[in-house]
This record gives sequence, C-alpha cells and structure tokens, in this order.
Amino acid sequence: MILVIKENTVKNDIDELIAKLRWMKLENILTEENGRYHIAIVNGGDANTDFKQFSLFPCVEQVLPFTQKFKLASRAAKKQRSVIQINGRTIGNNLFAVMAGPCSIESEEQIHETAALVAKAGANILRGGAFKPRTSPYEFQGLGKTGLQYMQAAAKKNNLLSVSEVMDTQDIELVANYVDILQIGARNMQNFSLLKQVGKTGKPILLKRGLSATYMDFLMAAEYILQTGNPNVILCERGIRTFETYARNTLDIAAIPILHELSHLPVIIDPSHGTGIREAVPPMAYAAIAAGADGIMVEVHPDPDKSYSDAKQTISPQTFTDMMNVLRQIGKAVNIHVQ
Amino acid sequence: MILVIKENTVKNDIDELIAKLRWMKLENILTEENGRYHIAIVNGGDANTDFKQFSLFPCVEQVLPFTQKFKLASRAAKKQRSVIQINGRTIGNNLFAVMAGPCSIESEEQIHETAALVAKAGANILRGGAFKPRTSPYEFQGLGKTGLQYMQAAAKKNNLLSVSEVMDTQDIELVANYVDILQIGARNMQNFSLLKQVGKTGKPILLKRGLSATYMDFLMAAEYILQTGNPNVILCERGIRTFETYARNTLDIAAIPILHELSHLPVIIDPSHGTGIREAVPPMAYAAIAAGADGIMVEVHPDPDKSYSDAKQTISPQTFTDMMNVLRQIGKAVNIHVQ
Amino acid sequence: MILVIKENTVKNDIDELIAKLRWMKLENILTEENGRYHIAIVNGGDANTDFKQFSLFPCVEQVLPFTQKFKLASRAAKKQRSVIQINGRTIGNNLFAVMAGPCSIESEEQIHETAALVAKAGANILRGGAFKPRTSPYEFQGLGKTGLQYMQAAAKKNNLLSVSEVMDTQDIELVANYVDILQIGARNMQNFSLLKQVGKTGKPILLKRGLSATYMDFLMAAEYILQTGNPNVILCERGIRTFETYARNTLDIAAIPILHELSHLPVIIDPSHGTGIREAVPPMAYAAIAAGADGIMVEVHPDPDKSYSDAKQTISPQTFTDMMNVLRQIGKAVNIHVQ
Amino acid sequence: MILVIKENTVKNDIDELIAKLRWMKLENILTEENGRYHIAIVNGGDANTDFKQFSLFPCVEQVLPFTQKFKLASRAAKKQRSVIQINGRTIGNNLFAVMAGPCSIESEEQIHETAALVAKAGANILRGGAFKPRTSPYEFQGLGKTGLQYMQAAAKKNNLLSVSEVMDTQDIELVANYVDILQIGARNMQNFSLLKQVGKTGKPILLKRGLSATYMDFLMAAEYILQTGNPNVILCERGIRTFETYARNTLDIAAIPILHELSHLPVIIDPSHGTGIREAVPPMAYAAIAAGADGIMVEVHPDPDKSYSDAKQTISPQTFTDMMNVLRQIGKAVNIHVQ
Repeated sequence: MILVIKENTVKNDIDELIAKLRWMKLENILTEENGRYHIAIVNGGDANTDFKQFSLFPCVEQVLPFTQKFKLASRAAKKQRSVIQINGRTIGNNLFAVMAGPCSIESEEQIHETAALVAKAGANILRGGAFKPRTSPYEFQGLGKTGLQYMQAAAKKNNLLSVSEVMDTQDIELVANYVDILQIGARNMQNFSLLKQVGKTGKPILLKRGLSATYMDFLMAAEYILQTGNPNVILCERGIRTFETYARNTLDIAAIPILHELSHLPVIIDPSHGTGIREAVPPMAYAAIAAGADGIMVEVHPDPDKSYSDAKQTISPQTFTDMMNVLRQIGKAVNIHVQ
Repeated sequence: MILVIKENTVKNDIDELIAKLRWMKLENILTEENGRYHIAIVNGGDANTDFKQFSLFPCVEQVLPFTQKFKLASRAAKKQRSVIQINGRTIGNNLFAVMAGPCSIESEEQIHETAALVAKAGANILRGGAFKPRTSPYEFQGLGKTGLQYMQAAAKKNNLLSVSEVMDTQDIELVANYVDILQIGARNMQNFSLLKQVGKTGKPILLKRGLSATYMDFLMAAEYILQTGNPNVILCERGIRTFETYARNTLDIAAIPILHELSHLPVIIDPSHGTGIREAVPPMAYAAIAAGADGIMVEVHPDPDKSYSDAKQTISPQTFTDMMNVLRQIGKAVNIHVQ
Repeated sequence: MILVIKENTVKNDIDELIAKLRWMKLENILTEENGRYHIAIVNGGDANTDFKQFSLFPCVEQVLPFTQKFKLASRAAKKQRSVIQINGRTIGNNLFAVMAGPCSIESEEQIHETAALVAKAGANILRGGAFKPRTSPYEFQGLGKTGLQYMQAAAKKNNLLSVSEVMDTQDIELVANYVDILQIGARNMQNFSLLKQVGKTGKPILLKRGLSATYMDFLMAAEYILQTGNPNVILCERGIRTFETYARNTLDIAAIPILHELSHLPVIIDPSHGTGIREAVPPMAYAAIAAGADGIMVEVHPDPDKSYSDAKQTISPQTFTDMMNVLRQIGKAVNIHVQ
Repeated sequence: MILVIKENTVKNDIDELIAKLRWMKLENILTEENGRYHIAIVNGGDANTDFKQFSLFPCVEQVLPFTQKFKLASRAAKKQRSVIQINGRTIGNNLFAVMAGPCSIESEEQIHETAALVAKAGANILRGGAFKPRTSPYEFQGLGKTGLQYMQAAAKKNNLLSVSEVMDTQDIELVANYVDILQIGARNMQNFSLLKQVGKTGKPILLKRGLSATYMDFLMAAEYILQTGNPNVILCERGIRTFETYARNTLDIAAIPILHELSHLPVIIDPSHGTGIREAVPPMAYAAIAAGADGIMVEVHPDPDKSYSDAKQTISPQTFTDMMNVLRQIGKAVNIHVQ
C-alpha cells in the first residue's frame, strides 16, 4: 500500500501517522517527490489488516495498492524517473552518463593514462576493477586497496566520478572510502547480505543484472537496497546468458523501455560485457541511447590487446572518441544530452 | 574453396573450368561481384582432393578457403554487402527498408486502409499474413488466396512492394504469384524442404530467425536457399526465446553487427514479434537503425486493439508516423537513409 | 467444453446431438474411453454461446470445461493414459517401447545387420532416417525411397515395427507406404501444414519436441494432429536448447511426469539426441524408465564410429544389450515391463 | 601440470620438491590417492617456464598436463571418485546420501518432528534453512542462530548429520559451529569471497549449481574451494533456468554422468528445487539414482501445505517413506546402496 499524503501536511502529522504504522508493525518508508510525501507500507499486515482505514486519516489523500511484488522500485511508488545527484553531478534527467575505463586497474600509470583519455573524449565517470570476480581462482584477482588509491587519484585529477565493484561485505567500508559509486556485479546480484549492507552506506549503487535474472528478480534485488532507505540505485543491463555462444552474452536492449515502464530507476547499458566483441561495442552503445538509456559503461584501455582481462571486448581511446561523437548525434534525435 | 577468377577472363575459359569441376563431382556456384567472378566450391571432394591444383589454371588468380561452415552466405564468398533489387526498388546499400502492415490480412477494407496509411508515413513494403502459423489449431488461420489477392491490389494501389509468409511447399507457387518477397517464418526456419523449394522460385526471400537458432543455424538455413542459385536472401531477427517472460521474446539487437560481420546478407529487425509489447516497438526500431540494420518489419493496424492477432504488439498509424520521423533523424547520425 | 454422454446411449441420439452441434458451427470430436463416449467441442461459439444448454439434452450426463488451451491432448478429455495399438503390438500400458537403430539408413547391409542385433537384444521398433534434416545443405541428406525399402524389409525380417521421419507434405504418402510410425522431427514440430496432413493418414505419429518448445507448445502441436481425428500421437522428449554447450542438448527428464500429468498421451525419451554423448546414453535411458517413461528411442550402429551422422551419440550393439539388461531390472522397481 | 610422485618416495624428497616449486613461485597442492602422491601445479609460471624439467627430479615419475581449466576438481588430478568422510559417515563409494528436511527451520517442534520422521524412513542427513536467500526482502528470512540451535539438537537426537546454508562471510563461523556440512546456495555459486572463506573452515561443502552455470562454471566454483586445501566438496544439481515456466526449473539429470566424467567429486540431486512440483519429486529422485547420483536433497515437512516457504515442492513424510522404498529397489539395479 502507498499512502499519498495531502499537500502542505505539517511534519508533525506525518510523524504521528508513521508512529501509528510502527505500532501496528507495518514496516514503512517515507519518500518525497516534488515536494509531495508518500508513505510506502512495504511489509507487515495480513489478510485481516484493514488497509482502507488509513484513508480516514486527515492527512491521507489516497491509498494505492502496489501492483507488483517490488514496491519501492515500482512506478506506483514514484511516478517520475529518479534523478541521482553525486557530488554535484547528475545521473538521469535526460543526461547521458558515460562510465569508461579499464576492466581491471593494472597500474598507477595505466589508470591515469586511461582517465585522461576518456575524460577528454567526454566520459564523466571512471570505471575500473580493484576486486575482480573471476570465474577461475587462477586468474588475476585485482590490485585491491592499492588499485583503489590509484583510481581515486586518477578520477580526481581528471574531474571524474568513479565506480568500482565490491564483492564482500567485509570490503564495503574500504571500497566506499575511495569511490563515488559502489558496483554490485552480475554474479552477486542475489547476494542478499551484500545488497542489504551496501544499501546502508547511503552511497549510489550500480546494480548489474544477473546472467539469468528476470526483470522481476532484478527489481527485487534493487528493492533489497531501496528498503534500507537508500534511494540511489542505478540499474545496469549487461547481457544475459542464452544458447548463443558466438557473443559472450545476449545484450537485452529491450530492457531499457521495459525497466523504464516498470520502475523509476535509471537504466544504463554495458555493451562491453553485453557482447564480449570489440567491434559490436559502438553499435550497441548507439542502440542503447536510441532506445532511451540513461548511460553506458564501457571498457576502454590505452592498448586494448594488452589488457589483463576482457581484452576482446575492450576498445581503444580512438574508437571511444569516435563513438562519443556519434552518440552526441543520436542523442539529439531522441532528446538525450551527451556531454 | 573459393576460386577467384582473374579480371577480364573470357566466358569460355570460365565455362571450361566449371565443366572440369563438374567432372570432378565438385558442386560449385558462380558468383559475380563488381564485375569480378568467383567460383565457390560448396560440396564434394575429400581428404584426397588436391584443391591447390586449381591455382595452376590460367584464369584462376587465387584459391581461398572458407573459414565457416556456411559458405555462400559468408563474407569470404562476397566481401561487399549484398544489395537486393526488387522491381526497381533497393534493399541494402544504406537505404532503410520499412515493411509495415497488419499481422493478418483480415478484409479487403482493412488491408487497403492500412496500406494507404503506412505508405503515406514512408513505408516501402506492405506486410500481411494470408497463411498464419498459429500455435493453436483453433485460432484464426488466415484468409489464404483471397487475402493474397486483396493484398496485391492494396500494394499496387499504394506503390508498395509486398511480403507474405509461405508455410507449405504446396503453396509456394500460389503465394509467389501475388507477392514480391516470400517470407519463411521463424517456426519453419529449419523446414529444409521448404527452404530448398522457395529458393528455386528466384524470388527474394525474407528468412526469419528461429526461436532458438544460433547465428550459425540461421546462416546455414540461408545457405539452403543460396545454394539453389538464388542470391536474394534477407535475414530477419525477430527475437529469441529466453527465460524472460515479461516480453514475448528477447530481441537480439547485437545480431545486426554480428551478422553483418559474418555475412554479406542484409539484416532487418522485427520489433513487434521481438518484444510483443506495443510501447517497446518504437524504442527498439530506433535501436535497430542505430545499430546499423538494413530495415525493420512492423505490425501496424488502423485500430490495433481490434487486430485479429498480435494486438498487444501492434501500433497505430499515428505511432508509426511519429516513429518514422525519429528514425529519419537517427538515420542521419549513422548514415542510413530513411525514405 | 466436453459433453460426457450417459452410459448406454444409443448411437442415433449421439448422431443427433452431433448434427445439432454442427448446425451451431461448433467444431467437435467424438471420443470413446472404456465404452463411454465424450464429445469435445474444440472450436466455434463465442461469448454469447450458452454452453450450459447442452446439459438439458437427455443423453448428456455432464458438461465440463477445458482447463488448458490444448483440449484433445488434455487429461480433461481423457482420464486414462492412451494405449496405442500398432499391428498387434502395444505402446503404453506399462510396456516399455524400445525404438533402436541407426541415425541414417546407410545401406541395405547396415540396416539389416542393425535390425537383427537390436531385435535380439530386445528392441521392438526399428528406427532409421531416410530423409535427414541436416543443419547444413552440404551434409548427407539420406537415401530417400531406397532407404525406406531397405528398412521395410529389415523390419519385417526381424519382426520389428518401424519408424522414420517425414519432412515434407509431398513425401507423406511415400513414407507412410513403408513404415508403421511416422516421425515429425524437432525442427518441424511447428510446421503446422505437415502436422495437419500427417494426422490425416491415420498412422501413429511420433512427435518430437522442438528445441525451444514449452510443454504448452508441444501439446498444442499434438493437438494439430489429434484434431484431424487421429488419436495415435506419441510424444518424444529429445532435449532442449539451453546455455550449456558441453552436451548437445539438455534432456528434460521431468517432462515425463509433467506431460503425464497434463496429457494422456504416451511419452518416450531420446537419450541419444538428448545428450549427444555416447557415454551418457545408458544412464539417461535408466533415468527415463525410472521416471516412468513409456519408452526410449536410441541410436545404435554396428560400428558407431563409422556412422554417417551423429557418431558421437551412437552406441554399439554390445552397449545396447547391456543397457537393456539394466532397464529390465529398473523396470521391475517401477512396474514397467521391458521385453 | 601434475607431478606424479614415484611410489615409496620419502617425505623429505617431496618436501624438497615443494620448496623448489615455491621458490619458482609455482603455486601447488599436494594430494594423495591410494597411498600415491601427486603435486598439482595450479598457478604461476608462464610461456617461458620449462615444465618438462620436473621429469628430471628423481622422485617424479611423470609430468601430466591438465586438459581442463579446472584442475583440482578434474579427473586428471584424481582418477578415483572422491569419498567424503563426515563424523564416521560416508558420502560417495556407492552409498546413496539422503538429505531431507524442511525448506526453512520454522520452530523447535517442527524441526524435531521432521528429523524423527525422515530418520525413520532412512534419511541420513537433516537439511533445513536458518538463513534464507529470498528473492524478495519482504519474505521470511529465517530464524538465524536460534534455528541452527534447534537443528543441531534435532539432528543429534535422531543420529543424523546436518546441512544448512551460509550466505555471508560474516556468518561462516556461526553456521560452522552448529552444522556438519556448509551449503553454498545457487545464487551464491559465484560469490567468490564466500567460496574462498568457507573452504578455509575445512568442513565439507555442499555447492549448489547456479541457475545459469555451465558445467565449467560449476567446477571452477568448486575449484575455488578446493584450492584452499579443502578436498571435501559435494556438487549439487538443483535445476537450471530455461524458457520453460511450468516447472520452476529444468532439472539437468544428465549432469550426473557428465560431472562424474569430468570430475572426481560426488554429485547429488535436488528434485525439490529442480522441479518446484511436489508430484514430480519422487520420479526425479528415481531418475537421479538410476543415472548414478551419489544422493539427493529433498524438502519434507510434516504438513507440506503449511510450509513457510516452497510449499508447492515439499513432500509429506508418507510420500518420502514410499519414495525411499522405491529408491532401494532401483538402487539394487544400478549397484548403489540406499540405507
């Protein structure tokens, strides 16, 4: 249930209502949209609970049901698309976020060089892995804290925000100290302990879709974060696993309009993991913006073939620069601004 | 093997070479690209056949291997993208083909009304089903021959080409009498008897990708048509079956750059079947052109909600018209011309 | 709707009722189970049709709705499992049908040798392909009519029934002349023209599940055959396409109990195509009988490694013989008789 | 590389060889099979490393390559199937492990009642969830520590081993204090931090296959545990996600023979999650043992319909008892002993 609060209700009245809900053991979350308040009752109550009674409260304008199992992530809870503010920068609101950088942070030099190159071409967020989820325990597992330190400096120097993956509840504090956006990888999309605890940091969370996650699963995972009170979740489609093996994954571009219909959260696309094929990265980035995506996340390396990981799907700074130019043109046709 | 023939070779020398190949029981197909001839040896020979001997023929410039199981469909057989000419109109060559019309031909009035509306908005090919492949035997199976007659008249009147599905070898001649392009549906993509016999009509064939067909399967199905000597095959991605059930299918936009890399054949996208969701049709059409597609196939109905079949994925003439305008803008950014 | 007819109703009364239904344009099929008649109304009627009126007919005991989109294939239409009689032999009724033989009929000698070997080990039906659905047009396409003639003789000599695939409506009569059971291959499961026309032969039809067919699709395909009035459909699970590539397909053993719950039709398993791995064939045949299958279809070749097609999944006569012995033991535990 | 050590080599010589490998920065693990030692070099070295030099060491009999990316989990590393000893009980070695119990531990009474019932019917391991990975944050999340205490007592009283899931690195010590086998759930199969840290407990680990994990992914996840030096990994197939929606998952029975071919680790089957359908649980358990599984994990509840979670796939004690009797019969046919 969503309780829509009347305009100009004083804070005291809302507090009283919330106290009443708590006393009834109804778990609830207060949200605000354009100066109007909503209270989402996300849990508690049973078949005997009379939810209609709430319409009798003087400050309640309307009582609305949730039509989906996900609640805070749903359009019912928030009609307008979410806009996320990070250190004065904006994600959403028809601005196209471009997250670019190497798959792994390999060295101080490499991350600084890449940051400078992608910033120049128009990226606004630096990506790079310090803790790497590798299918094999024998592959490069990332530089850890040292990598994060290099990245923080490189982002700062080039006036970029930064995003990096956290894989373990024990590392959350560490990663949160160095980066602006915490990434949850596809393989951890249903690591529910991790979701709950990254939510509590209050930091923006980039949540990648699991390899075989339905839209419902994906939004329920977002719900785990949202229900900690952290509204800053960015959904990232990065390809699903299908029978096709020529491409690494099947990038589900239709997730953009569909997730936008189901949810108010911003949706970005990762064409690098989504295809695993360098040549397919620009066309899929073009498809993403054309279909209305809020941004992309791309692997760029000064010398792609020498990349420690994911070399086949990594593009060069020159390709990235050319791609940004085309994105700007397509953006104009669909009213999305690319920096 | 591909035998690249020297420039300016006289026809007689080529004929002699082909006669020799036949005598060796090597099945071969002669193709021409920009005035240069190639002979593709598609079958025959074994481990003992000395293919290198052909380089000794005076008219043979080079002997190249096929790197894929599909041969005539491959980039090795033809470097430049195929351009298909149909009654003075062109598919390929950076012109965006727009096939639009109802799922089923329901009445004379309906197909005439739709044809006029889509022609006005910029479509160049009229689509409509006369023989419908329905999952249930109890659903509308199409108007058959009468439907084809209505369609032929409607296309002619509005200066449109036409495309319709053929489901049975026994109907090929009938359908070929009335339409310009024969469509093979997704469920018949590996109906090999049908593929061989539609090929022999010499008509352009629109081949839809099967619900669980890999790129390899898809191109091998095209190969069945090509090896009848009919070079006019148009590939159509229409969504694959995955675990996701909210959308009818998962539309594989990455198939565009990947099939273009593997093959010279044109690739079009069907966002109607590809998503099954009306609201997702325009964004996916935008994604298609942005990713470099050679065209789209869209279900349009004067009154979508009253459509006999596929109502949920059918758009209105107004939506179609608006969509065409955006497609023209995006087309400019990626150098594809929309009429 | 199903009209359950009262016991001991005279034929005349049933005929009258059917005439009335026809006059109302309600497509119907008369079925018989243990001496009791049912009339299934499979098509026709609309929101205004008063189906309840039929309960007023003196010979109608009960009017039941269909709970599934498939009707004649459903448990609602027939409570007891179907038993199929073919030339004095039985499929169903807790007898385990064993269809064995080569993938392709390669020569007279090969099919005779294989027939003798599998008959000796306890098979009761000879399988073998004369028309082969090959992914590539350049692979062996089968011996056609000659192959069917060889097979007919080999089956007769060894007192076996025979089964072979038909791929084209134009070949139905030919294949039906030589074999006892007509097979529809996985790639043609939704070739609706073919389904309708094989049904009309009245011959038992072995229908293979499509690579990405849901249970619903599968039973709707069976419905296409059943609604021609041919009740003799055998369902064959042969593996579905998933992301796993080590095995050729993922064999869905759970299809056995589930299809038995949804439908009265017999269900057999093809562990050869289902896995594509020779070593996995016996364990999966054991799993099939343990889960209650009505039979198996297995590829056996006198010299598996020399098989023209599917060599990797073909077992030797010795492996087949050993496997039959274990099947007999497991059969005892689950009350299924293996010859 | 695997260094096969000569019989009767003294410990000192092996230690020297290991010291040498460490000095060369070659990560290695010493294993023992039937009194023979092997050293698996699992990491380190590059194109310039001369692995052949090791054959010159007096104690090295043979140097073998790994043929798969997984090493310690492979048949190359260990020819005989692993047998796991837990407090005097055995998993593997043709003994059929039966893990049974409720999805969630709901109360002291419920777990005691279930434990007594399943023990009487022949189960040897009690299952039950204290930390539940639920798709929705609003569903029952488990009793946590209290649940584990109830379970420990119930298992002890009924002379059963116990298994329960751990979801977070921070809970490992807690769960390990109360249960005999630590379970890693399907959604955490690639939670690499968790895999590494459960491995270090030395406890037996039941690793569930991820919803879209290939055999390769699955065995690489096992490898993460094995390379901590913990050899006690039990693989559990629990259904994969496919396009089919009637069943909760598609249970991949062929995983049994295939994983047994690729790896020496025991393989058990979970027919409850694997189908999500109560009626399909016994047939799939029969299929599992027939195909050679080392055990099953089944959800049993005194009153299945009142189960807090997974009610639809939970069987009653009576069904469980009947099922055990059939399993014993099938076990005899395939030489697997059921208690």
